[in-house]
Order: sequence, then structure tokens, then C-alpha cells
Amino acid sequence: MVGTSRASASAALVECVPNFSEGRRPEVMDAIQAAASSVDGPHVLDRHADAAHNRMVLTIAGPPGPVAEAAFRATATAAHLIDLEQHQGVHPRIGATDVVPFVPLGATDMRVCVELAVRVGRRIAAELDLPVYLYAEAARSPERRRLPDLRRGEYERLRAELASNPALAPDFGPARVGSAGATAVGARQPLIAYNVTLASDDLSVAMRIAREIRESSGGLPAVQARGFRTGDPNIVQVSMNLLDTRRTPMWLVFERISQRAADFGVSVLGSELVGLAPAAAISDVARHALLFDRFDANALIETRLLEQVLG
Amino acid sequence: MVGTSRASASAALVECVPNFSEGRRPEVMDAIQAAASSVDGPHVLDRHADAAHNRMVLTIAGPPGPVAEAAFRATATAAHLIDLEQHQGVHPRIGATDVVPFVPLGATDMRVCVELAVRVGRRIAAELDLPVYLYAEAARSPERRRLPDLRRGEYERLRAELASNPALAPDFGPARVGSAGATAVGARQPLIAYNVTLASDDLSVAMRIAREIRESSGGLPAVQARGFRTGDPNIVQVSMNLLDTRRTPMWLVFERISQRAADFGVSVLGSELVGLAPAAAISDVARHALLFDRFDANALIETRLLEQVLG
Repeated sequence: MVGTSRASASAALVECVPNFSEGRRPEVMDAIQAAASSVDGPHVLDRHADAAHNRMVLTIAGPPGPVAEAAFRATATAAHLIDLEQHQGVHPRIGATDVVPFVPLGATDMRVCVELAVRVGRRIAAELDLPVYLYAEAARSPERRRLPDLRRGEYERLRAELASNPALAPDFGPARVGSAGATAVGARQPLIAYNVTLASDDLSVAMRIAREIRESSGGLPAVQARGFRTGDPNIVQVSMNLLDTRRTPMWLVFERISQRAADFGVSVLGSELVGLAPAAAISDVARHALLFDRFDANALIETRLLEQVLG
Repeated sequence: MVGTSRASASAALVECVPNFSEGRRPEVMDAIQAAASSVDGPHVLDRHADAAHNRMVLTIAGPPGPVAEAAFRATATAAHLIDLEQHQGVHPRIGATDVVPFVPLGATDMRVCVELAVRVGRRIAAELDLPVYLYAEAARSPERRRLPDLRRGEYERLRAELASNPALAPDFGPARVGSAGATAVGARQPLIAYNVTLASDDLSVAMRIAREIRESSGGLPAVQARGFRTGDPNIVQVSMNLLDTRRTPMWLVFERISQRAADFGVSVLGSELVGLAPAAAISDVARHALLFDRFDANALIETRLLEQVLG
């Protein structure tokens, strides 16, 4: 007899974090959120709006099918209520629903999210008659992996060039934009904002380590890094975004920084997380530390419980 | 704008794993489970019955109040339907509802479960007129911490001695038993079944390390350990139950075994988990490995999500 719950099968669990080009009109934001909430099953966990960006982000979580339905309904509502010709904000955007990323939770495979992105992208194109670009893990060409590349020139460029420039041809839907613009639909890992603090007053050490470990300077894949001062003049930090801890796990980042700091005669004080981390990334740290053969987020009581409750 | 969900407040989340002295009559087990399921809020995640033990275990999870209500209703139903005078099984038991342990999930504090045990124990005594013993973390004296001590002589001893033996006086309720017997209500950490495998054909190494690290031989607190052979003649294992990873964390167990194995010239091959682990224990491994100042199960997306969905 055991004291823990053991779910026999593991249900897929995903998060969707759609971004809408409206951060000022409450009635429009409410309508979009209501559309997402009208589906039985997923939970709208968070709504974050920014007036300067003129942009709203919803966080929706649950089993794949209902989350996809919620994302679609929100996208349809945004297409009816947001006019890109009237939209201004400091954040780059290509459409009323600008991006629709699907993110695996628990031990869910990335392929589930890629399939979901393709399915929802196809449906947005077919039913809403919008151009759709697949991006990140769902991208079908390297130049569409990164959102900044995809969004270059924004909605205004699409309006001017989409019909005539084959490089802008959408993955699904018409080669023309209306007032709802276009939508990027993709799949990606959750982003982890992770800092390592160093016992040094020398910012150049943190900057140099950051340069060595970040992908853009030839370092670790899926790592963005910068050196910063902190509130304490004797502590500097390497501040990072980890974009995919399957490619570069947290323990490897920590090990690499510790080694390079030691080379500079500097000791590592500690780690800090800004915000939350996915159970998969933390389980992988434990797997490495304790030499588990197999160990993933599905070995956690809480993850199994979540799958059972939401699935 | 962030891609992760950030819940502002953290809701308590608990598991209750009540054990009932009925593992043979489906209609009785169904009635008890139905009573637990009749409460809105908690989820009955699992039901495990064993005919030889003549015993059933339910796993109920959710916010504290509703879980307590579900546990109480199941206890009331069991008291009506189970007659200890008729009950036979190989598992020791003192009552129709034998034990009601509350277990913290996520980053929930043990105190929440201790308070819950006291509240539910008091209610079982008052409304069902049953003797109630508080055990484990909720125990009010050292000799009531361990269930085997509490259950010595079982129901039959209570029937014979409860009225006359002051050492058996219950924490709540009458000093007499009826056909529903008595109930132990307590609070405890989730149990983790954890093995470390060693590259050795010498069972005595595993047995010796097990003896050194287990609490009963003066080793690490809240650790039970035995040495075993495995299917591979060149691999032995130290097989453990970790009863409270706040007192002895997993990384300390692994470190201690690794050190002692090295003393014997034996290398550690790896770790394995039998069943599931709580997010708190795994988060603590990551905290230690990456030198996080603060890091607990509340830093996991999935735990926050679970609290939000169930809370």
C-alpha cells in the first residue's frame, strides 16, 4: 500500500500564450478573454496588458484540444474587433492576434505542440481567411524560426509587399492582408529567466562570461546572456534567458559559468530564477545531480495530479 | 511580456490517503468512495484495494477544506458499513477507517496538514463518537508518532483494554470502542521510495552502507534502508524509504552513499525512483545543485498551475 498517487497513463498538457494587438480598450480585451474562457476544459490563468505596447497576453493551460479551441476562438474575436490600420504601439506586430505560441508542460513532448500549431494555423487560415506563418519549433524554414525575422517591417510591410513578394508567402491562407493582419503560430519551450551571481566587483568578468556562453557569440545553444551590476557593488551577475533547456540544460549553464569564473579567480555565489521554471527543466537538474537513468516531470506527484485534473 | 504564468498568491494543496478496513465487498468500497467524491473541489485520484489485506486506500487531493470534508464523509460512511468484529485481514488495523494521513503537496507547509489532522480528528470524535489518535507529525506524544506503536494489539486490544488502560486514552473521543473501532489521524510527508545502485557483486557492501545510513542504526534521520541484490549479478543496491526529505534531503542521501561506496572502492551507477516524488523534494535537489538562495515547489509552473486549478 502506497501513500502517493500513481496515474497509470500520462495525459498531454500544454500552455498557450497568445499575444493580441490591443492593450488599451478594456471592452475589446474582455471580449477576447471571454472567447478563450468560453471553452470548457482549459483555464485562462493570466491576462497581462500593456498600454504602451498596446498589447495583451493571455496564458491558457490545459489539454491540447481544448486549449487549441480556446486559442482559435480568441483569435477569431480579435480579428473582428481589432483594426491594424488604427493600431499603434511600441511593440512590433503583424496582426490582431500577433503570435500564438504553444508550450509543452509537464513531460509533454514538443511534437504535441508542433502538431497543435499546424492544426490551429491551418484553421485560422481556412476559417478566418488570414495569412498564417509557422514559427519557432513549428517553422518550415530556418528564416521563419525567429519572431524578429518574421516580424521585420511588421504589418505595414505585409500590406505593401505580401501580394508581390514570394519570400513573404504565408504557410497557410491568402497572400494578402486585411485589417486583422497576419498571425504567427508556433511551438516553443517555456523561457526561463535565470541569473548566476558572482562574488566580484568587476563587471567585465560577468560581461566576458556572458559573451562566452551565449549562443550569439558562438557559446551554448538557446542561451541569451548579458553581464550586469547588482545592487551590491561586490556582486555582479550573468543574466540569462534559457530558451530551450532540452538543448542546453540549467546544470550545464551553471557548470560552465562556474568553471569560467574559477578561471578568473571569482567564486559563484548562487543562482536565482526570475519568475517560474517548468518542472521538466528542474527535474533534469535532479536527474543530472543524482544520476537518475530516467527522470522527468512525470515522476512528480504534482505533475501527474495536474494531468489528471486537467486532462 | 512573459511566456510563463505567474500566480500571485500561493494556495495550499494537500493530499489525504485514508485507509479503510474493507478490501473485499465492492458495494462497501463504492459507497465509501462515493462519499469522498460527493464533495465539490477535491479529486479522488486513486483507489487501491487488496483482498488479502482486506483494505482499501483512497488518494484524495485538493485544497485543505474540501479534502478534509471528503475524508470526514468517507470516514462516516465506513463507520456505518464496516464491523470490526467481522473483519479479518493480514494488515494490522484499529478501525473501520484505520488511518487518515494528510500530506502537503507543492510548497504547502506541514503545519497546514497538522492543523487539518487536529480539526478532522476532533470532528470524527464529536460527530461519529469514535476514539481518535493523533499520529506522525500531528502526534502529541512521542509514543504516538509511529503507526506500528499505535496499532500494537490492534482493534482487539483496544476492545479489551481501552476503558481501563490510561496509556490507551484517545486524543479525542470516548475511551471505548464500538464496531467501527478507532481511527488514527495524522500528518506526514510523502514517502519516497528511492534506490541507489552500486557497481559491485558484493551484497555486503550494500548491506553495510544501508546499515550506516538508516536512522534505526544511528544514521540519517527519516531514512529506512536495506541492501539488496538486483537482477544483474554485478549490481547491488541500497533500497530506501525517505520518510521526510526536509530532514534528510535526497542529495544528502546520495552524497553520503557515494562517499561510503568510494571508501569501499565501489562506484555509484545511478539512482532510481520507485513510484513518484513530490515536487518539493526534487526542487530541493535543484536548489542544492545550482546554489539557489530560495527555490521550492512554488517556483514550478506546474505547481502554480495546479494550485490555481484546484485552489
